[in-house]
Amino acid sequence: MTTNSSHRSFKNRLHDIIYEADTPAGKLFDLVLLILIILSIIFVMLESIKGLPDIAYEYLYYAEWLITIFFTFEYIARIIAIKKPFRYIFSFYGIIDLLSTLPLYLSFFLTGTSALLTVRALRLLRVFRILKISRYIGESNRLAKAIKDSAAKILVFLFAVLVLCIIMGTVMYLIEGEDSGFTSIPTSVYWCIVTMTTVGYGDIAPTTALGQFIAALIMIVGYGIIAVPTGIVSAEYASDKKHGKKIDLNTQTCSNCNISEHKDDAKFCYKCGEDLYNE
Amino acid sequence: MTTNSSHRSFKNRLHDIIYEADTPAGKLFDLVLLILIILSIIFVMLESIKGLPDIAYEYLYYAEWLITIFFTFEYIARIIAIKKPFRYIFSFYGIIDLLSTLPLYLSFFLTGTSALLTVRALRLLRVFRILKISRYIGESNRLAKAIKDSAAKILVFLFAVLVLCIIMGTVMYLIEGEDSGFTSIPTSVYWCIVTMTTVGYGDIAPTTALGQFIAALIMIVGYGIIAVPTGIVSAEYASDKKHGKKIDLNTQTCSNCNISEHKDDAKFCYKCGEDLYNE
Amino acid sequence: MTTNSSHRSFKNRLHDIIYEADTPAGKLFDLVLLILIILSIIFVMLESIKGLPDIAYEYLYYAEWLITIFFTFEYIARIIAIKKPFRYIFSFYGIIDLLSTLPLYLSFFLTGTSALLTVRALRLLRVFRILKISRYIGESNRLAKAIKDSAAKILVFLFAVLVLCIIMGTVMYLIEGEDSGFTSIPTSVYWCIVTMTTVGYGDIAPTTALGQFIAALIMIVGYGIIAVPTGIVSAEYASDKKHGKKIDLNTQTCSNCNISEHKDDAKFCYKCGEDLYNE
Amino acid sequence: MTTNSSHRSFKNRLHDIIYEADTPAGKLFDLVLLILIILSIIFVMLESIKGLPDIAYEYLYYAEWLITIFFTFEYIARIIAIKKPFRYIFSFYGIIDLLSTLPLYLSFFLTGTSALLTVRALRLLRVFRILKISRYIGESNRLAKAIKDSAAKILVFLFAVLVLCIIMGTVMYLIEGEDSGFTSIPTSVYWCIVTMTTVGYGDIAPTTALGQFIAALIMIVGYGIIAVPTGIVSAEYASDKKHGKKIDLNTQTCSNCNISEHKDDAKFCYKCGEDLYNE
Repeated sequence: MTTNSSHRSFKNRLHDIIYEADTPAGKLFDLVLLILIILSIIFVMLESIKGLPDIAYEYLYYAEWLITIFFTFEYIARIIAIKKPFRYIFSFYGIIDLLSTLPLYLSFFLTGTSALLTVRALRLLRVFRILKISRYIGESNRLAKAIKDSAAKILVFLFAVLVLCIIMGTVMYLIEGEDSGFTSIPTSVYWCIVTMTTVGYGDIAPTTALGQFIAALIMIVGYGIIAVPTGIVSAEYASDKKHGKKIDLNTQTCSNCNISEHKDDAKFCYKCGEDLYNE
Repeated sequence: MTTNSSHRSFKNRLHDIIYEADTPAGKLFDLVLLILIILSIIFVMLESIKGLPDIAYEYLYYAEWLITIFFTFEYIARIIAIKKPFRYIFSFYGIIDLLSTLPLYLSFFLTGTSALLTVRALRLLRVFRILKISRYIGESNRLAKAIKDSAAKILVFLFAVLVLCIIMGTVMYLIEGEDSGFTSIPTSVYWCIVTMTTVGYGDIAPTTALGQFIAALIMIVGYGIIAVPTGIVSAEYASDKKHGKKIDLNTQTCSNCNISEHKDDAKFCYKCGEDLYNE
Repeated sequence: MTTNSSHRSFKNRLHDIIYEADTPAGKLFDLVLLILIILSIIFVMLESIKGLPDIAYEYLYYAEWLITIFFTFEYIARIIAIKKPFRYIFSFYGIIDLLSTLPLYLSFFLTGTSALLTVRALRLLRVFRILKISRYIGESNRLAKAIKDSAAKILVFLFAVLVLCIIMGTVMYLIEGEDSGFTSIPTSVYWCIVTMTTVGYGDIAPTTALGQFIAALIMIVGYGIIAVPTGIVSAEYASDKKHGKKIDLNTQTCSNCNISEHKDDAKFCYKCGEDLYNE
Repeated sequence: MTTNSSHRSFKNRLHDIIYEADTPAGKLFDLVLLILIILSIIFVMLESIKGLPDIAYEYLYYAEWLITIFFTFEYIARIIAIKKPFRYIFSFYGIIDLLSTLPLYLSFFLTGTSALLTVRALRLLRVFRILKISRYIGESNRLAKAIKDSAAKILVFLFAVLVLCIIMGTVMYLIEGEDSGFTSIPTSVYWCIVTMTTVGYGDIAPTTALGQFIAALIMIVGYGIIAVPTGIVSAEYASDKKHGKKIDLNTQTCSNCNISEHKDDAKFCYKCGEDLYNE
């Protein structure tokens, strides 16, 4: 019973360190993790640059192994610390964690999987989990809410833009032809999207007078309708701001169901009823 | 009398399947149509790509005929199912339906009309009719309303931008001359629109110091005034949001006058008074 | 006395036709003028295109003379019809009218002034005067008001952007040097404006790693601050919309002081007290 | 005592001239300074242009020395005129003043420091200090407030955009490879930022079908989310506008702690309690 209790207590302490950010140990753990993730991304980027001295690639290789081993231990610790491991393993962040740790081992055992190594860039997504320590969490919640509220409208809008791009792209394919780079309808649609979104690479550009006239029309229309999604989000955000109430959330994570963002004065998990202060 | 009644009942059932989306059969029909339209657009796109194996073009040709025959039957069914066929034939979607079905037949009987085949891209517009099955209909209605309310203002604004572009384009034509690609006033105006809308291809770019200075001015002005249409739509949308009431509309279409979007509890067509549940 | 009276009556009728748009004759006059201005602009544009057949340039030359003679008569009529001609002559539109009519005569008498012909593009500005016939006048008034209300803020904003561009342009000049096209500080500032406003020609683009990093920073900042002027105009426009009252203005112009946009029920000019219905 | 008093009085007068803009002498001083700063920036720009006649560089050199000497005297005067000189020396503008004056002296005594001369472009920042004479101060205060209020949200948003750019850049590096210019992950991320912010240089552009498809997706997403920061600032600005009160501030600067923007009827410094009218 004592061992069991001390074991539970170990698991609880591990849970506090890994999943929460309200204790000094938890904050330190998150900080170390954040630095390692950012370092790791920088290493992946550096590795892709050609022309560095050979010794640099060697150091990057060792650094990569060190970080990967740390992440492996972290992954195992996360599974141990939680009551229902499968809920973590098959959660969004659980899959990201696995995907960003595995490739290096695979490239060690199997040849020809070095392309997989780039999957490690997904580690960057883990930054968002850690950012719960930040005072920006309230802002990003409100941002996410405003985007979610406007999502349906913006999707309808983007769909309409896409249909317009396909039709205008087809028209431009007929007018400009292959000499100006409009080699097929998909390419023309690509050009139309590049133009409509005001990106304008210039790798494909109309050369005939009629083509330039229609391109100008497309741009003016694009300029006029860029206002629409902006107006939507503005209105949504303003109305959200008016009615919204700020609720103080903390970073405590339920050790049973892995749900976070409980209210500050919460005693039980709002999802599964688990006692949050249960030792 | 029985045959007449069974005939009316057949027409009614056809009407329910084709024009409405509240019954399982209607939903299925719309789904099949949606898939066929999207497939058809993909086929038109693939056809335009050069360098595919010959067998691919052959398959695309057969697939195209299959889809066109289906659309032909659908077109005929739509005419049969409605009480006033001419109202459908000369409606916006009726013309789109005809235009997107006819070209293949024409290309079969007449040579040299293969350019017409691209008209089939118009089929994409039919997607909007089907989307009435979607829960996005309320959103797109509100979007369309906000755009319509702001249309007059945005047109005034775009007209002012156009006048500015013509005058600045003429100025740039005088300053830069033909060496930098400003070969004529229309080309310079095209360049000015490309710049003002922040598309910026770079196929034409000022090379003289004075030209670059004026181009910078044009950009700064363009950057400053891009705010105007956005502000308009935002304000319009926000005020619409404040005063707007959500009304539940369904997808029922009057079999007499082809008007859709009746209120959920409507018994008679709000336009022509036709009994909507009339069998 | 009779001749004088008939003369006044002729002047009054001329004034009604030229300066007002509420009578059928005034509407017709404005429509003819609008068509001639647009035709004239199209002719100026066509003239600048090289490679047309010689006969086309000849026709354009004759058409230009016809239009110029009409505009000359119009200019003289405008001076005759108004009570205080100098107020018209030195008004904004008076100068535009003169500038867009004179160049052709000058090019006839003086050689080497053909570059002046492009000044005729200023005729386009006259379109705004005619548009008082349009139902868009209310919209453009509100637009102009929103822009004017936001002008001070947008100028402050654009000034800050300009200072930022000058400083970042200098930094990029130091980093990239002449090899990448950053040949001088003014050129670098030009590049920075092109980038910050998201135009992005690509005629000058950073090639060093540090230069690309700073360019990316500039873009992200530019992307973030593009929101500011938009937010300003939105807020200004929305508040204007809330407090604004729609006042019915008509197109009547005072024959004494040339002020237009009197209230619908105005009997006397709000500026100079002239009786508006005085015969 | 008399000398001391006259000395204090001299210091006070100097303080009024240099730090304040409410007296004629202070306004004149600010105007002269503004002109000299702008002239100086123009000179720095001109110097960087190659191909001017040698005599021009010589004149620019002398002009630069004249302006630098004036700025040196101004710097010394600023230190003398204030009660707590270190507060000025280590303030933001104090450091800018030093940095923009020193390089010319350094380039005179040390060779190889001519690159430092470009630091003089920082002088432009001093313009903001002088602009307190302008009626735009109220506007820029409100602008700065709206930006500051939205800063946290916009930073969260830009961070999310950056993460998205890094992940999509890595994806494009895998798809496009080195042939299309995607030579390394950092370069691909740079391309992704250029695309997402709709700058679109075109120096790097996808050439494969899959790459163009994903690029189009990135653009559409970028087009959709450009609305977000705009919406934030709009809402912030509108709400600020609603609740904000205009307070009349003047340009008086406390001679003790160098704080400006006291209320119009202030008698004592709101920060340190110094008597503002103390002679």
